[in-house]
Amino acid sequence: MTETAQTAPSAPDPGTLGIICGGGAFPTVVAEAALKAGRKVFLLPIHGYAEAAAVARYPHEWIHIGAFGRLSSVLRRNGCRQVVFVGTVLRPSITKLRVDWGSLKLIPRVLGMFRGGDDHLLTAVGRIFEENGFELVGAHEIAPELLVPVGAFGAHQPSASDLADAHFGFEVVRALGRYDIGQGVVVGSRHVLAVEAAEGTDLMLERCRELRANGRIRRHGKAGVLVKAPKPGQDRRLDLPSIGPRTIELAAEAGLAGVAVEAGGVIAAEIEAIVRIADEKGLFIIGLDS
Amino acid sequence: MTETAQTAPSAPDPGTLGIICGGGAFPTVVAEAALKAGRKVFLLPIHGYAEAAAVARYPHEWIHIGAFGRLSSVLRRNGCRQVVFVGTVLRPSITKLRVDWGSLKLIPRVLGMFRGGDDHLLTAVGRIFEENGFELVGAHEIAPELLVPVGAFGAHQPSASDLADAHFGFEVVRALGRYDIGQGVVVGSRHVLAVEAAEGTDLMLERCRELRANGRIRRHGKAGVLVKAPKPGQDRRLDLPSIGPRTIELAAEAGLAGVAVEAGGVIAAEIEAIVRIADEKGLFIIGLDS
Repeated sequence: MTETAQTAPSAPDPGTLGIICGGGAFPTVVAEAALKAGRKVFLLPIHGYAEAAAVARYPHEWIHIGAFGRLSSVLRRNGCRQVVFVGTVLRPSITKLRVDWGSLKLIPRVLGMFRGGDDHLLTAVGRIFEENGFELVGAHEIAPELLVPVGAFGAHQPSASDLADAHFGFEVVRALGRYDIGQGVVVGSRHVLAVEAAEGTDLMLERCRELRANGRIRRHGKAGVLVKAPKPGQDRRLDLPSIGPRTIELAAEAGLAGVAVEAGGVIAAEIEAIVRIADEKGLFIIGLDS
Repeated sequence: MTETAQTAPSAPDPGTLGIICGGGAFPTVVAEAALKAGRKVFLLPIHGYAEAAAVARYPHEWIHIGAFGRLSSVLRRNGCRQVVFVGTVLRPSITKLRVDWGSLKLIPRVLGMFRGGDDHLLTAVGRIFEENGFELVGAHEIAPELLVPVGAFGAHQPSASDLADAHFGFEVVRALGRYDIGQGVVVGSRHVLAVEAAEGTDLMLERCRELRANGRIRRHGKAGVLVKAPKPGQDRRLDLPSIGPRTIELAAEAGLAGVAVEAGGVIAAEIEAIVRIADEKGLFIIGLDS
């Protein structure tokens, strides 16, 4: 190879980024990152999940979950070939899906998605987008700053025992992933105190707080680690585990010593707020190679 | 080998059976089974766990958890060489252990037990009994009728899909056992809805009821199976998983279709009440080879 001064061929214009928005702070973080990179954005907030105040200042059109025909036409009409899906959407009820003509032909497949775990559902959703000519990208590809990197954040450091709990937790999440079970566990002194399944991280942490309050988990001082990591083999474009300020508040209320996440595999919104709360409450926050 | 009419040498008299009693109905079932088999019994109800009314009609002496010196002397004084441990005892708090001279030398080991999972704790407890000359037997050895056999009980039968959920649940419990996590999961349409860890089966079922009530688990009609099985390699003399009437009531409230247990690996108290409630509420109860 000889070195030649050559301009790289410019990539084809990816056009406007379509952002399908669930709940929480992530959709706006992704929108801001895309705008900062010079891209146009068009938001598609989902009724019942997205927050009106968060999407108001961007061009947007509300959609119903399950109405794939309308979703495709809104995306096409606004020049969105690349689509990112971001924010919380709980497994929807079949009866709440707003089926339109565009989804009708998908019904047998959609029904199939409701058997099997979340991964199954999400993989099928991803495939449907691609078959319809859209490119699905991950929120972390648009806004890599969302990914928690390696290192400890804030004023508090994990003890050697906390680190051992964290690594034990990663092992458990990996083993559970085969059965498509959640992305979070709480481990204290190498004892698994709680496993996240359909209830989600927040409710798991509330359970830990109650177990501690009523003596089912008995430890003194701050103890136990919330561990979050993606399931092995999970489609990261659709469902990266996340932490936010509320996660840290609930972890503190549960009396945990801190939070350990797989570096590069978990997204965090409002990292300044996360660190401020962790510092105030005495919790460590750490990203680890798992 | 020639057939000879020979009387088997009579086994040495096992003496009085010492029954260390936690909470629930199991201790009295075991006491009755031993009495029916012509054995004498002596009960050692644990303060804070055993029920006074349940033990009142048997010879007994109350003990504090952790006071091993006194426990040994009560057992010896009452001629108990064989000991069975039965009923609910939640992982005790270190501060609630009533340590006596007999336990003092065990303290380093007892502290070690509080790291690691329940199995670790229970295995260590079993070893301490044996080193002190006691023979630890399983509740199911004294009262084999406690073990749920193969078959469906009551009026309702699982569907093919329920059976598939049950077998998927057994697989998950086996995989979790490596990490010393609970003995129960709730599975619906091959999706793990809840995993039992430190909270126990009852609280897991209450969570499923709430998840259903608030729409986090969305299914129509009765759906989902509570699956219980012992962890692989678990010491069955100390901690067999159990079901009782309350389990069935909570499973019904959670909207589950039924309960599947590993036949021969799970004990049931008050099976008549279990079946009556299951029949009334429309749930199946089944013991399966896992």
